[in-house]
Amino acid sequence: MRSIVGRIFHQFPKSKSFHRYLSSDASENNLQTQSQYPKRIFSGIQPTGAIHLGNYLGAIAQWVKLQNNGEDMILSIADLHSMTIPHDSKKLSRNILEITATLLGCGIDPEKAILFQQSTVPEHTQMSWCLGCICTMPRLAHLPQYKEKSKDLKDIPLGLFIYPVLQAADILAYKATHVPVGEDQIQQIQLCQELARMFNSRFGQTFPIPHTLITGTDYARLRSLRDPAKKMSKSDTDPKSRICITDKPEDIVRNIKKSVTDCTSEVNYDIEQRPGVSNLISIHSFVTGKTVDEICKEAQNINTGQYKLLVADAVVEYLRPIQERISDYLSDQHYLMEVLKIGQEKASEISSSTWQEMQHKLGMTFNVSSKKKAEIHVR
Amino acid sequence: MRSIVGRIFHQFPKSKSFHRYLSSDASENNLQTQSQYPKRIFSGIQPTGAIHLGNYLGAIAQWVKLQNNGEDMILSIADLHSMTIPHDSKKLSRNILEITATLLGCGIDPEKAILFQQSTVPEHTQMSWCLGCICTMPRLAHLPQYKEKSKDLKDIPLGLFIYPVLQAADILAYKATHVPVGEDQIQQIQLCQELARMFNSRFGQTFPIPHTLITGTDYARLRSLRDPAKKMSKSDTDPKSRICITDKPEDIVRNIKKSVTDCTSEVNYDIEQRPGVSNLISIHSFVTGKTVDEICKEAQNINTGQYKLLVADAVVEYLRPIQERISDYLSDQHYLMEVLKIGQEKASEISSSTWQEMQHKLGMTFNVSSKKKAEIHVR
Repeated sequence: MRSIVGRIFHQFPKSKSFHRYLSSDASENNLQTQSQYPKRIFSGIQPTGAIHLGNYLGAIAQWVKLQNNGEDMILSIADLHSMTIPHDSKKLSRNILEITATLLGCGIDPEKAILFQQSTVPEHTQMSWCLGCICTMPRLAHLPQYKEKSKDLKDIPLGLFIYPVLQAADILAYKATHVPVGEDQIQQIQLCQELARMFNSRFGQTFPIPHTLITGTDYARLRSLRDPAKKMSKSDTDPKSRICITDKPEDIVRNIKKSVTDCTSEVNYDIEQRPGVSNLISIHSFVTGKTVDEICKEAQNINTGQYKLLVADAVVEYLRPIQERISDYLSDQHYLMEVLKIGQEKASEISSSTWQEMQHKLGMTFNVSSKKKAEIHVR
Repeated sequence: MRSIVGRIFHQFPKSKSFHRYLSSDASENNLQTQSQYPKRIFSGIQPTGAIHLGNYLGAIAQWVKLQNNGEDMILSIADLHSMTIPHDSKKLSRNILEITATLLGCGIDPEKAILFQQSTVPEHTQMSWCLGCICTMPRLAHLPQYKEKSKDLKDIPLGLFIYPVLQAADILAYKATHVPVGEDQIQQIQLCQELARMFNSRFGQTFPIPHTLITGTDYARLRSLRDPAKKMSKSDTDPKSRICITDKPEDIVRNIKKSVTDCTSEVNYDIEQRPGVSNLISIHSFVTGKTVDEICKEAQNINTGQYKLLVADAVVEYLRPIQERISDYLSDQHYLMEVLKIGQEKASEISSSTWQEMQHKLGMTFNVSSKKKAEIHVR
């Protein structure tokens, strides 16, 4: 599961500060202009397979939190983005339903948040085309993610180059004011901010300049269970390096038992010197709601081997109800489709209004009717 | 008025051969596969200002001919393409209505052909995104038109790079089998053919491989009235170099009277040695329906100065009813909008069906309902 704009830094232990708003140029985010846009949070996730604890803690759990705090949340299942690299059609279809079930199972509530499938809302690509016309080639070529992803490719797919423009359209279609992202996505959001600024200045005020919403930057990301120097990743070839939220309990227990820590047997939190055990404490803190201090105190008389079993049990218990719900949702695919359909309708209502405004400002509509109306009004 | 895929070579004198079908690989245009697609012609024109005789003879007059021959014609007013270079919104809005009036005035019949505004049919950009994901950067960078247009630009707009992909989507959205183009567009149509082939081979037979439809390649294009070495062009800074179809009669007479020919006073057709006078003969032949031989015979006893007045009169007379119709249409903008709306509905009917098929093949739809049906069927 690759998150596009939805990879937030995981936020644990729980005691630390929550959200931090970033914007490349605060002075320009003129309060008067910005205040006309109600706070709205947009994020997206690519339907590219089972999600691991890093995705869950870093993105989905944060979305659920924001949703339950009463925020106006729009969540896109970004199937168009998942095509930027060669894909398998059957897998994609299955993955879309699976991620829908997963998000619902994790607590996303379609009554509270808008959850929809990106490709079913045409305004994303329509706006992407128009934003692409005010974007330049060198601007896209300098984005670090593009450089990184394309450096070993001979025939770079066009999608890899232009996806940040679609991502900007995703956000601007809803006039989103806040976008939860990971640090690796900041440059893309800056592109979105620039495109919004350029559009506003050329064609008249239309879009808010979206803030990046970064959570828990004081903490490292969730680490690989096999190599704490690396982050937990879906693309790691060793499945024992991660815990997927739909993993069987025995696999979770095995992977945590076998996780790489160090030679010290005590349980204490030191992310620099003891990244492996600190990673487990972080997970443990998240799934139990206990602070790091509480956890370390309770684990005073046990060694890391025994502690791993504790963590494994806690993770299994935490995931059990989530897994049951996911499984329930997956058994009713008609319901999942209905959820996506309702999400599409709600999303379309907003995006079509934005697109109409954009069409008008770009000169793709005609002022004939309004003139007639004006004449009648004058009479 | 820049034609995208709609610039056909003008076809005169009238006696010569008409259409020629090109395809880069005839053997692959398997008759069996291709025959499942009914013949359908797609073309488009950018709404970028008043059109000149070169556009008219080269594209619009050919469309009218194809339409009146009973062909299934789809004509797009390509506003999304006209944004690939910086544009003025008010002008664009006016130009869309003007080109609609012009096409109707020239004989396009919305009862016979589908005439619509590109941006009102979302499938163009939706399909463009998906086709872009199977296209590569080097493939686009090697297109001669891109090289030509971008060579003097520092900050190349993205639109200039990706517009051939949108053009492919334009054509494939209607499963068009034939695309009238000028020679400068052949490479772009080849890209469209390649994308259709790639899609078919990766995701299953979906698109016909569109043929390029080239008319009158034996003849040169219409020449500039100021410099017969150049073609008649909208971008020429000297308006006396061209005749726009909405030009006033006095301007037409003046421009033809002042047109550059040569020192020989006889009227004879020799495109190599006497391009100026031959160009006038070509125009004369088109607007009167007479052959070159007939024209030269009739002009035996007059000099080129006198001949120019003959041509000017004939052009003015030919354009008079067209201009009257354009003016009539322009005075009823509600009608023009209605024409575009009906065109949008007809176009959407086809394009949405293509997009649904594409969505299904790409894995963006779900097979749940059909499975259920199958189960019921088995019982």
